[in-house]
Amino acid sequence: MSDIKKRLVIIGGGFAGLSVAKKIDKSQWEVTIVDRHNYHSFPPLFYQVASSELEPSGITFPLRREMRARKVKGCRYRMGTVASIDTASRRVITEFEEIPYDKVIIAAGATNNFFGIDGLPDRVYTLKSVPEAIRCRNAILERLERAALLPQCDERRALLTFVVVGGGPTGVEIAGALGEMKRYIIRRDYPAIDREEVKVVLCEGTDRLLRTMSENSSKAALKDLGQLMVDVNLGKTMKSYDGRLITFADGTTINSATLIWTAGITGEPIALTGTEVKAGPGGRFIVDEYNRVTGLDDVFAIGDISCHADERFPRGCPQLAQPAIQQGRTLAENLNRRASEQWRPFSYKDKGSMATIGRNRAVVDMGKLHFSGWAAWMMWMFIHLISLLGMRNRAVVLLNWIWSYFSFSTSLRMILKTAEQPHKKAY
Amino acid sequence: MSDIKKRLVIIGGGFAGLSVAKKIDKSQWEVTIVDRHNYHSFPPLFYQVASSELEPSGITFPLRREMRARKVKGCRYRMGTVASIDTASRRVITEFEEIPYDKVIIAAGATNNFFGIDGLPDRVYTLKSVPEAIRCRNAILERLERAALLPQCDERRALLTFVVVGGGPTGVEIAGALGEMKRYIIRRDYPAIDREEVKVVLCEGTDRLLRTMSENSSKAALKDLGQLMVDVNLGKTMKSYDGRLITFADGTTINSATLIWTAGITGEPIALTGTEVKAGPGGRFIVDEYNRVTGLDDVFAIGDISCHADERFPRGCPQLAQPAIQQGRTLAENLNRRASEQWRPFSYKDKGSMATIGRNRAVVDMGKLHFSGWAAWMMWMFIHLISLLGMRNRAVVLLNWIWSYFSFSTSLRMILKTAEQPHKKAY
Repeated sequence: MSDIKKRLVIIGGGFAGLSVAKKIDKSQWEVTIVDRHNYHSFPPLFYQVASSELEPSGITFPLRREMRARKVKGCRYRMGTVASIDTASRRVITEFEEIPYDKVIIAAGATNNFFGIDGLPDRVYTLKSVPEAIRCRNAILERLERAALLPQCDERRALLTFVVVGGGPTGVEIAGALGEMKRYIIRRDYPAIDREEVKVVLCEGTDRLLRTMSENSSKAALKDLGQLMVDVNLGKTMKSYDGRLITFADGTTINSATLIWTAGITGEPIALTGTEVKAGPGGRFIVDEYNRVTGLDDVFAIGDISCHADERFPRGCPQLAQPAIQQGRTLAENLNRRASEQWRPFSYKDKGSMATIGRNRAVVDMGKLHFSGWAAWMMWMFIHLISLLGMRNRAVVLLNWIWSYFSFSTSLRMILKTAEQPHKKAY
Repeated sequence: MSDIKKRLVIIGGGFAGLSVAKKIDKSQWEVTIVDRHNYHSFPPLFYQVASSELEPSGITFPLRREMRARKVKGCRYRMGTVASIDTASRRVITEFEEIPYDKVIIAAGATNNFFGIDGLPDRVYTLKSVPEAIRCRNAILERLERAALLPQCDERRALLTFVVVGGGPTGVEIAGALGEMKRYIIRRDYPAIDREEVKVVLCEGTDRLLRTMSENSSKAALKDLGQLMVDVNLGKTMKSYDGRLITFADGTTINSATLIWTAGITGEPIALTGTEVKAGPGGRFIVDEYNRVTGLDDVFAIGDISCHADERFPRGCPQLAQPAIQQGRTLAENLNRRASEQWRPFSYKDKGSMATIGRNRAVVDMGKLHFSGWAAWMMWMFIHLISLLGMRNRAVVLLNWIWSYFSFSTSLRMILKTAEQPHKKAY
């Protein structure tokens, strides 16, 4: 081993990127993590930020603070949005600088896919980042405030109709949270709004919810959402949305001021220059069993932005935390090996999947085992709590959950914006 | 007493407005609180949001949740920014609606005064609202991230020079917090930045800090700031700022990318129509000893936006929480009285004032008693903790303070923005 460390650049400080950082041998590699955000965040709980159940600070953790953690020590963080990688000169290019690398790992994750539907990005609310979740929270609360000021009219009805498009875990979870808001919060906090006026609608294009999970879980989720007064529509595909009117493929329409879009994801856009290789379907980079981007020597991709098709997963691993973490770990171990050593191919160990629908309600699939209800909900909470970065965050999230469990409420329904132009109005 | 309740509109859900809401007789008055924000916030701790010591949610509390509290029950909240009050038709006018009143209380507080200095509102950072504090926090953290990517150069020096203009409590407190960041955080979190590169400068136009407090407290604050490596300049008046270069009246200049402006406040702009009466000096409404706006029958003003000059306070009460709370209480008691009863004139009971400069450092004035150091700091924390609304907030803030006391750090240094246009870049 030479004394000069090789330069490893990791694009993205999410589950995948941090998993590499923890396992990589810092005596061999000089590791740089580049991320547009100066924090790691916890996507499974974004919907709880949107529904005012948790504060953003509870599910985010500063990357620089993480760089001080025992396992990650020695890695450095640089802020930047990676627009492209020049594979010829081996440089990662951000808006601020060019970072040279010997090996680069693309772990930038996925963002929303709007499938080219006209005007959608500006009109819908999404849950793929903390800023998006905050925006969604502010929108939900503003709709309620605006409605409370209006007499019965179409506008008031549109403001009180919340439509979630997409019946995957995020869609089910945010619809459940909105159902709980309708059931427990409206009556107490908004005396000017009748609970029955609030409509929560969940639309899914296929014939079942949570279609990556078991039939049992799909059925349990459907039943739970019904009890929370969520109007679930299966086989319902959205065609267009003008900011008020949602039109579906079957010709029906809904008037809604708030459409939460959880129906599609695509890899974060990262261009490669100096090569013909580019991202494949769904914006994912095709990788081999070592997570090496096909056709390139020194470029790897892991997590949501990567795709390795095999017999078990003909369309690649599910885009979840577990595959990302496992791929990161395997890749780091391989990068740590001496030149003479054989690399170990990646194989995904499915530890199960879960979703929650509200208090005391969740569904869990673990291999052949499926269960739902209170036990599933407790397990869901435990797993999510221990997966958070930072003891303070775990303490704060636990405190919030206990508080809201017993009070049926939270004190987090603030419309908290950042004043980008604080003095625009007054001057 | 007639069966028909009189309509009382309170503009502002701050200390002053909520103090009225708590004391007012809800069987006599139909009370409406109008506020642009759907939350009450706690200005004494805004600087801790800016310095990443507390999360915004810890020092804000939803007004609708407060409306469920025992003392406030029966009051209603309506969202809106009050632009004017039509005294002829007795209506409060917001961007959404017109709210009729029998009596109206202006408790809208104060905002920043830039004294007409060219371009200042867009170029400086301020601490008069939670969104402004979040913006300031994001700016401070972004400066550090940007600087860490640059070689030694003027730009890097400007990014690492933080200038606070205004030596009142807020200026002293944010300068102290920045000093602590320099002393305890830089070395651990920003290995690419040398601690000595970070400059924290506090400029005050008069010859002493905290000029509303005792000489002893001023001296103690000056000494404490020195120990935190804050460069304090007294008798230094700012003339202009172009976003990089600060020019002072004495001709000297400082290159700084971050100017935090705490040097002036003015009442929130509220126009009165149907009368000649308007806000006086400092944007404050001149009131009599019953907090009635001089020249008007049914309009009252309390808190920072009001001014009643007497022998003790020839320029009106200090613009602090205590006078606001006391005025609100007295006014509510007067409004509760029967027509035949004499109103009680307001008289301010000064309970003392305090400021903190960092861990274990604070100054307290109580009548003739002045003390500083650890005891003052403990008292400062205790008073602020019990003054927060909501048990959850107290628990969260206390947890944060204990955590950061022992760890010399927090895990809150995230640049957390609201994605107003989340998909602008990608699409």
